[in-house]
Amino acid sequence: MGTVSLNDKYLNQFIEKDEVIAVQDFVKAAHRKIHEKSGAGAEYLGWLDWATQLDKDEVSRIEETAQKLRREAEVLIVIGIGGSYLGAKAVQDLLCPSFGLNKMEVIYAGQNLSGRYMEELLSFIEGKEVALNVISKSGTTTEPAIAFRVLRAWMYEKYGEQAAERIIVTTDKTEGALRKAADATGYTSFEIPPDIGGRYSVLTAVGLLPLAVAGVDIRALVDGAAQAEKDLASEDLFENAAYLYAAYRQILNARGYSIEVLASFEPAMSGINEWWKQLFGESEGKQGKGIFPASVIYSTDLHSLGQYLQNGRRTLFETMISFKEEQYQSRIPFDQENGDGLNYLADKTLHEVNQQAMNATALAHVEGGVPVVTIEVERVDAFHTGYLIYFFLKACAMSAYLSGVNPFDQPGVELYKQNMFELLGKPGYEKKI
Amino acid sequence: MGTVSLNDKYLNQFIEKDEVIAVQDFVKAAHRKIHEKSGAGAEYLGWLDWATQLDKDEVSRIEETAQKLRREAEVLIVIGIGGSYLGAKAVQDLLCPSFGLNKMEVIYAGQNLSGRYMEELLSFIEGKEVALNVISKSGTTTEPAIAFRVLRAWMYEKYGEQAAERIIVTTDKTEGALRKAADATGYTSFEIPPDIGGRYSVLTAVGLLPLAVAGVDIRALVDGAAQAEKDLASEDLFENAAYLYAAYRQILNARGYSIEVLASFEPAMSGINEWWKQLFGESEGKQGKGIFPASVIYSTDLHSLGQYLQNGRRTLFETMISFKEEQYQSRIPFDQENGDGLNYLADKTLHEVNQQAMNATALAHVEGGVPVVTIEVERVDAFHTGYLIYFFLKACAMSAYLSGVNPFDQPGVELYKQNMFELLGKPGYEKKI
Repeated sequence: MGTVSLNDKYLNQFIEKDEVIAVQDFVKAAHRKIHEKSGAGAEYLGWLDWATQLDKDEVSRIEETAQKLRREAEVLIVIGIGGSYLGAKAVQDLLCPSFGLNKMEVIYAGQNLSGRYMEELLSFIEGKEVALNVISKSGTTTEPAIAFRVLRAWMYEKYGEQAAERIIVTTDKTEGALRKAADATGYTSFEIPPDIGGRYSVLTAVGLLPLAVAGVDIRALVDGAAQAEKDLASEDLFENAAYLYAAYRQILNARGYSIEVLASFEPAMSGINEWWKQLFGESEGKQGKGIFPASVIYSTDLHSLGQYLQNGRRTLFETMISFKEEQYQSRIPFDQENGDGLNYLADKTLHEVNQQAMNATALAHVEGGVPVVTIEVERVDAFHTGYLIYFFLKACAMSAYLSGVNPFDQPGVELYKQNMFELLGKPGYEKKI
Repeated sequence: MGTVSLNDKYLNQFIEKDEVIAVQDFVKAAHRKIHEKSGAGAEYLGWLDWATQLDKDEVSRIEETAQKLRREAEVLIVIGIGGSYLGAKAVQDLLCPSFGLNKMEVIYAGQNLSGRYMEELLSFIEGKEVALNVISKSGTTTEPAIAFRVLRAWMYEKYGEQAAERIIVTTDKTEGALRKAADATGYTSFEIPPDIGGRYSVLTAVGLLPLAVAGVDIRALVDGAAQAEKDLASEDLFENAAYLYAAYRQILNARGYSIEVLASFEPAMSGINEWWKQLFGESEGKQGKGIFPASVIYSTDLHSLGQYLQNGRRTLFETMISFKEEQYQSRIPFDQENGDGLNYLADKTLHEVNQQAMNATALAHVEGGVPVVTIEVERVDAFHTGYLIYFFLKACAMSAYLSGVNPFDQPGVELYKQNMFELLGKPGYEKKI
């Protein structure tokens, strides 16, 4: 296919083919839950064919809004938390240049409660042209609502009533505080589809608007997901890489490999790592079950967690993401004196050395008793990123159903909120603590 | 003490006092290994009294070099990997403003093999005044050696022979490629003490020079560690918070809580999280043992990993770091319309809401079956950061000895290197793969 594929060469000594075949019937049953919408949480399967069903007029409207923001602002502040920002940040990190080199700054707020973070952000935007995109289904989630209060006040202070033209709301179609605010003030608004949960929403306006502002080719991103939707539609494990990945995960989990470490050799993947941890952690971590999701960036973290990976408790497996194409040609210079002994690498590209570091690491970890799954991605671009995202979305739904849980709810995130409302004296929340 | 202390109020229902008392004799035995230098790896105990024994002339020389670099450069690139950069980055993240607001940019290279990272870094420094600090004991570690080749060539291209005045070497006193290069070219150099391993080295020149350049008060940082050295000298568990933390960890580990999640409610702690993961993961993850170190930033990650923490597999415990003093006074504005229903928080500081989010989270996680240890730090400043660092160093040595491993070696990080040398055809490494 040349897009995203699974390589099990470092897994063969851990899993017999029989074990995989034995899972096939369960996969088929779970496949029906997904495609016939007959499983728990079926009302949140809107992501399944979103990329192929997406209204192209909506994409055009997102692009036009993004162009306007790029003309009028230097900084877009995206206000959101959890699924309302992790996807956009992940794709931005991967596809846009780092070191502040992107033409348009897209930064995030409302994803924490730190007074210091807010004060530094306010210092950063001082004197700059700013726009806001506030993303929240209800409009009342505490963190983004607080950030929106603070930043909206700043915007009206700076722009007067014109501020309203620089505030974009992404929220529920008809309900909630943000929908009301948008209707009352005339903020441009986009919809969060009711049948797509936060961690599955990156390909909706939730992710697409910030990404279009950041300069990402959002049509290619969606096209990649649409391609994956077609490629990953089979109920047959051996013809569906996403299902095979899900099956491997649950086979390993049943054997006691209960921590999964997602490993990339590209620092720009750190946002994808975080997005992936939410996707799998929140989908599977319930009813006392779930593979604990961790992540690393190599070779950086070979010099920190590498020792543990090699020799620590043998309860973890590793999923490595490899980008095959050499997209950057930086070469290692020859040095007459060769004091560092590196001339054997002279004229090799960093990419080549990095790829060999990956192979070397996989071999070492397998020898150390760590099963390694490899996901091979053809190249880093919007199309392949969209493809990879859909691959993980579908794998996650399958994996969660295989483990017997609802992939689309998150009942456990309510308790700390209840406690917090009580401790803060929110009306209607009496003190029980 | 009002510095760094342990609060076990969220732990009481998980651990009986008897269990802690039962560990006391083992703690005393391990204490002797540390203080009488009689345990495995005793030749790497130089960090134990480093802060009180540190040559003040050396600190002055570091400060003078830093002042010179701050006058002559806009960007310092620190080249190092693992213990040669995680400590400096951790303290910089915590003590210096983010969003590029720091007067002097201190950035990192040689901590990965990404061609893209290197090319973006070269774009970023184009036209800027630059200095290098290359940190490596041997001078031949692949990642930093490659980065140094590339960036040294860039420096000589830009500055000619004057480049030598902008290159600072931190390496072994007498041996290795970097020492030779420094001697041959007259680079200013600093020493990595032979009896302090990488992950224990942040308070040596390894961390102090970059931090002084970044504007950190390195004397206060060292003073904090020196205070901790005095406060944490007792062999008695109940008079030594570092030992008590180590004991809690091993008691929980023995009960099957084999993942530790370090949690902060301050985004600027993300570097400390990474440093901590190396410290504990590399010290303890050996011989099939070790608590798997993970980390989160709340409330951000309550909206991603929160579900897992609350309801997932019950094999994890949590260590929360709380900063008590309200150092930033950002307040939540009152809003006439109150569409978001937040007026009950109007005029509260973000700090106050954040603190209650922490209490609410601890209560919720305890209810969900997660033991929570709380480390209370008086405030965020250089002194308390130095104190916290020493607290973790000493706790780590104790915890590793309690679990029966050498806290100071890392035998498992060699195998992937060997494999890599073979795959890359390094002279002397014949193909076995």
